[in-house]
Amino acid sequence: MSDDVRTIEWTGDGLRLLDQTVLPHRVEYLTVRDVDVLVDAIRRLVVRGAPALGVAGGFGVAIAVRQAARDGWDGARRDAAIARVREARPTAVNLAAGVDRVLPFVPAGEDAVVAEAQAILDEDVRGNHAIGAFGADWILDRVGDRPLRVLTHCNAGALATAGWGTALGVVRELHGRGRVELVYADETRPLLQGARLTAWELDRAGIPCVVQTDAAAPSTILRGFVDVAVIGADRVAANGDTANKIGSVGVALACAAAGIPLVVAAPWSTVDPSVPDGNGVPIEERPAEEVLTWSGARTAPAGARGFNPAFDVTPARLVTALVTETGVLEVSAGTTPSMRRGGSAVSSRGEGAGGGA
Amino acid sequence: MSDDVRTIEWTGDGLRLLDQTVLPHRVEYLTVRDVDVLVDAIRRLVVRGAPALGVAGGFGVAIAVRQAARDGWDGARRDAAIARVREARPTAVNLAAGVDRVLPFVPAGEDAVVAEAQAILDEDVRGNHAIGAFGADWILDRVGDRPLRVLTHCNAGALATAGWGTALGVVRELHGRGRVELVYADETRPLLQGARLTAWELDRAGIPCVVQTDAAAPSTILRGFVDVAVIGADRVAANGDTANKIGSVGVALACAAAGIPLVVAAPWSTVDPSVPDGNGVPIEERPAEEVLTWSGARTAPAGARGFNPAFDVTPARLVTALVTETGVLEVSAGTTPSMRRGGSAVSSRGEGAGGGA
Repeated sequence: MSDDVRTIEWTGDGLRLLDQTVLPHRVEYLTVRDVDVLVDAIRRLVVRGAPALGVAGGFGVAIAVRQAARDGWDGARRDAAIARVREARPTAVNLAAGVDRVLPFVPAGEDAVVAEAQAILDEDVRGNHAIGAFGADWILDRVGDRPLRVLTHCNAGALATAGWGTALGVVRELHGRGRVELVYADETRPLLQGARLTAWELDRAGIPCVVQTDAAAPSTILRGFVDVAVIGADRVAANGDTANKIGSVGVALACAAAGIPLVVAAPWSTVDPSVPDGNGVPIEERPAEEVLTWSGARTAPAGARGFNPAFDVTPARLVTALVTETGVLEVSAGTTPSMRRGGSAVSSRGEGAGGGA
Repeated sequence: MSDDVRTIEWTGDGLRLLDQTVLPHRVEYLTVRDVDVLVDAIRRLVVRGAPALGVAGGFGVAIAVRQAARDGWDGARRDAAIARVREARPTAVNLAAGVDRVLPFVPAGEDAVVAEAQAILDEDVRGNHAIGAFGADWILDRVGDRPLRVLTHCNAGALATAGWGTALGVVRELHGRGRVELVYADETRPLLQGARLTAWELDRAGIPCVVQTDAAAPSTILRGFVDVAVIGADRVAANGDTANKIGSVGVALACAAAGIPLVVAAPWSTVDPSVPDGNGVPIEERPAEEVLTWSGARTAPAGARGFNPAFDVTPARLVTALVTETGVLEVSAGTTPSMRRGGSAVSSRGEGAGGGA
């Protein structure tokens, strides 16, 4: 792994998380040994990003199994703890999927659960490198083989995954090929994952970056300053409707108006074939205080109320390409995930499905 | 004047400004007696909003005239000071227009200049009431005569004008008629005029309001939560392209996608017939620090750069209605300001031009 950011890692002692709430000012780790601490860490966004949450879900089961053995829980109490992990955040399908994938290993004990969770982690890193390669190929083919100006929203980087990143994996791959001129990183209110995390990751990787407000993104795109927008996803419906961080659909509308591609980069596990379209995706509402305050200090008047949806849904017609570890689907052109239920995808360039390089 | 917010007022002692940088937590006034203090206050957004800047421009000349007499300046030094006021912020046409309007009164002395600046202020308040009435009529006719859910961006309220407000003047008028269910106020990064000022104004007026991030606005609109968006303008080109606070064009794209009207409410003086379209509007870039910090504390990594345009341009095709004190122009339907050079406008409802009730 060429990236030096260790977002999430199983140690003999427990699950070690890079605490993303204190970045970029401090690099601190939290070692989790209890389910309730993990649920709290997930809710507070100590660990965040759909793929990283999948890994956290898998290791969360391992924590529950170990804690049950340590504290003498019965099976019902252990299963209730696992269910709390599974439901800690409602929109990201990966969290539940990570839990579900390791569940069959619970009867075999902690080591088996850990091994399966570690497999999720390793596959994620491998998959992200494949996403990066597929995405970079498609973009250079479609947009032009030259240094590009890329816009991204929120953080779909190494910090949102087990490593390398999805949207930022594409950016890293483009950069490795000498094809990044500049990245516009939307700051991503209310929690500023773009300003705090994406800018930090890109700076460490030596990739030129400017931070802008989320409100600036549509204008930056319409003024012709951007060649392609690349974002992650928290859940993709069968028809290609894409749930991602709030603000994504504003970026998508501007891309369509400007005639530039919107590329969604996400592992295939983000696709939820049980949800036919975006109407079926639950939109998590986070505490209004996140909008009304900053660093604990109130910005809005004392009586003000807030509305704080964490995600929005970009209609499939605005998603130019969905890049997964198996290839590229040109969604707005009519190729939807529902056509590839088995998890394979056809590259837009006519290549066969890759298995994750 | 039914509104109790005195944004800008000439006293015997100087120009009294409500300091908008410390709202909503403190209500403090700054009395300005020197041109350089005024220029600084305009740049720091102590006073802001296109119409209020027009009034500030007029009284700014009065300050220069008084200061020249007090400090023994010659005419050249006085004129240079006036030019500094005129150019304190480049995008808002009103500031320069306010200066230019009172300039002919300079030879007649301070009292004549003050009287003309006061006329700008009085006309602004009267005009805003007319804008409110025209806008409310048009919206209830077009959208439906029932309590409405209104979205607004930034602050085009009493705080942005000499009183009552333009976009919020329309909201106040709708509220007076019992036709406001809820206002979504975009927080308006980086300086949070929505969270700090609009929420404060609406709370004082007893109008129900929720604050949301700018990133949430397109999604809120697309989810069907909004009946109409009403915003102000800093400059309107002859073809109807509208420069307003950064983030406005994202709201406009979402309105078009959702099929709801985008209403721009602004005094006719905001129209700049010398600019044929949005390409001719200079876009002010403010300090990057505003994006990279929060309340003086750094949020982005130490090395990060920022991009901080203060305005964007909404193409005329996305502006459903331009409401001025003389009536309503249906811009996206093809009625542009250039058709009404004389300053009169025809109401969409077939009425003759009103003169500002």
